[in-house]
Amino acid sequence: MKLGGVKLRELAADDIESLAVGAWVLGTGGGGSPYLGLLNLRRLYAEGTRIRLMPPEELADDDAVAVVSNMGAPLVGQERLTDSRTIARAVALMEEITGKRFRAIMSLEIGGGNAIQPMLAAAHLDRPVVDADCMGRAYPEAQMTSFAVGDLNPYPLTSVDPRGIESVVAKVPTWKWMERVSRKICTEYGSTASTCKAPRTGAEVKRWGIPHTTTQAMKIGAAVRAAQRAHEDPIDAILRAEDGRLLYRGKVVDVERRTTEGFLRGRTRFDGLDDWRGRAMEINFQNEWIVAWLDGKALAMTPDLICVLDSVSGEAIGSETLRYGQRVTVIALRSPAVFLSPKGLQHVGPRAFGYDLDFKSVFAP
Amino acid sequence: MKLGGVKLRELAADDIESLAVGAWVLGTGGGGSPYLGLLNLRRLYAEGTRIRLMPPEELADDDAVAVVSNMGAPLVGQERLTDSRTIARAVALMEEITGKRFRAIMSLEIGGGNAIQPMLAAAHLDRPVVDADCMGRAYPEAQMTSFAVGDLNPYPLTSVDPRGIESVVAKVPTWKWMERVSRKICTEYGSTASTCKAPRTGAEVKRWGIPHTTTQAMKIGAAVRAAQRAHEDPIDAILRAEDGRLLYRGKVVDVERRTTEGFLRGRTRFDGLDDWRGRAMEINFQNEWIVAWLDGKALAMTPDLICVLDSVSGEAIGSETLRYGQRVTVIALRSPAVFLSPKGLQHVGPRAFGYDLDFKSVFAP
Repeated sequence: MKLGGVKLRELAADDIESLAVGAWVLGTGGGGSPYLGLLNLRRLYAEGTRIRLMPPEELADDDAVAVVSNMGAPLVGQERLTDSRTIARAVALMEEITGKRFRAIMSLEIGGGNAIQPMLAAAHLDRPVVDADCMGRAYPEAQMTSFAVGDLNPYPLTSVDPRGIESVVAKVPTWKWMERVSRKICTEYGSTASTCKAPRTGAEVKRWGIPHTTTQAMKIGAAVRAAQRAHEDPIDAILRAEDGRLLYRGKVVDVERRTTEGFLRGRTRFDGLDDWRGRAMEINFQNEWIVAWLDGKALAMTPDLICVLDSVSGEAIGSETLRYGQRVTVIALRSPAVFLSPKGLQHVGPRAFGYDLDFKSVFAP
Repeated sequence: MKLGGVKLRELAADDIESLAVGAWVLGTGGGGSPYLGLLNLRRLYAEGTRIRLMPPEELADDDAVAVVSNMGAPLVGQERLTDSRTIARAVALMEEITGKRFRAIMSLEIGGGNAIQPMLAAAHLDRPVVDADCMGRAYPEAQMTSFAVGDLNPYPLTSVDPRGIESVVAKVPTWKWMERVSRKICTEYGSTASTCKAPRTGAEVKRWGIPHTTTQAMKIGAAVRAAQRAHEDPIDAILRAEDGRLLYRGKVVDVERRTTEGFLRGRTRFDGLDDWRGRAMEINFQNEWIVAWLDGKALAMTPDLICVLDSVSGEAIGSETLRYGQRVTVIALRSPAVFLSPKGLQHVGPRAFGYDLDFKSVFAP
């Protein structure tokens, strides 16, 4: 499909199903379950909507790109139903503020439900979705993006709540201040908000965005779904598709979670099964899985992607849906390179989450 | 002075001194000490600025009027120095958002330092100040205004912090929601923010504003200052000028204050002197003095203005400057009529502050 000389790929209904499965794997526990967004998008597809995916290379340097996400505590996002128009309104509000029309819409984070949010906005506003994000997974805070690592301008941000509350963070000195102020607004809304982040130019997306992550999520999801249909091991399919690492198999024996300061925080403990019988894993989370400890020793940590999967279906489990007794498999996937630099690690390494650990990748030679 | 057919009064440096004294009396404990704003305005006057006061009757119906205040916990406002340009920036940001130029600037609350804030903005932006406010005193929350009682549109609101953080609350369903969201932003800034509230039309200011309160504050201040110079009783001068009521004389024996949720809350106790020897007064405050109890019985309550004054100088004492051992005189002044209606009392009566009391005015026959 070509439109004005630009190559766009129209996504089929089946692509959307794969996207939801794959994005949830890349959510690393956070980003919110894609399920509710998927229901919205299925409805829009049933009404005739078709999402057009735009490779970032097709953006003109001076195109304006909207970067969207639902923000807040995943446990709340799961309980408080919203409407696909809410995220579209965040984008429209940004256009009103800046007076500039967006060429396309992209996801802040490809992990979890936020892979679907740009599609909902795109459906209502009739724009393409850029095949990229700025996390390559999900992260909990505003300064944890490749755009922040690139020191791009952090403002403005619009946030909208289904009740009709609309706020703009017009100017902040740093990404961390954007996090602080927008988080408080989100918390007051009830710990969930639809947001449009600082607009990006096409040039910025091409230089600092993480490209083709929508396609990556769809591929992971397609691999899982194909394995499920063929009665093969879907986790094996993910590890092969992404060159990932198997870390652990076990059973959930404890989950402590608290919704606080606009996040879902806590920890979970697993008892080992199979090769890991007698060995305990504990994982700390702040929306996303942050550090996984095996018998008290840090085994995997951010920015490596820690994914907790249902051992049978291979589908991801989020920090808000994990529950006692589930059989889980923990795997690691590779972080985008931008987060592995010293500057990247300042933003998303274990110390950025308060852990006094030097980053050591499970993929280190 | 006439400008474009409009009668404006140029304020003299001495008027500003009277305004600061009188506004602090009308602050009823809150609104923040006018002292720091006065220092800023003295400097601007020394540099040649002259403030022009505009009677609200001179506004055209479709003029746009900026309504400004510093928001937050008075104790923080006293410790965290800001710049006169910060409040001007809040107004300029509102003009950027709405695309409409303000004809004039007015105070949200004539009580305390917020009587001075519109003058600082006016000095930088070269506009007149409207001789009116929408509280006739100071109140702690956004829905406690005559504009809210009149059910006028509560949004947008701009807020600016001296660090360079700028936020806009673009849309809210109610005034109470404006309070909730803007308060959280203010709290995250550090419990102090310069704000420009929802713009008003000239027609709205004429219908729902509380007129001539700048002049009223200057008259109170002039009466206090004249009495001080003549070695007469300045408190008597206030009571005569405003037809007020003497409630109590005593000595501060205890102050409990906590800066919480963007407010200064607490209570203070006085031991009686003169006619009140042996009788104890306790006053609860949320920025402003809310309820005064004499020997455990509610004696005066909002919306009546409860003013705690220095017994010798007659000058007001705020909830953030009250301290052990001060000799104080407590008086009551009359509330604007708009707050005495059932709708007005819903917004600012004792129940609006969580006290299970029916409003009884000390001025009731």
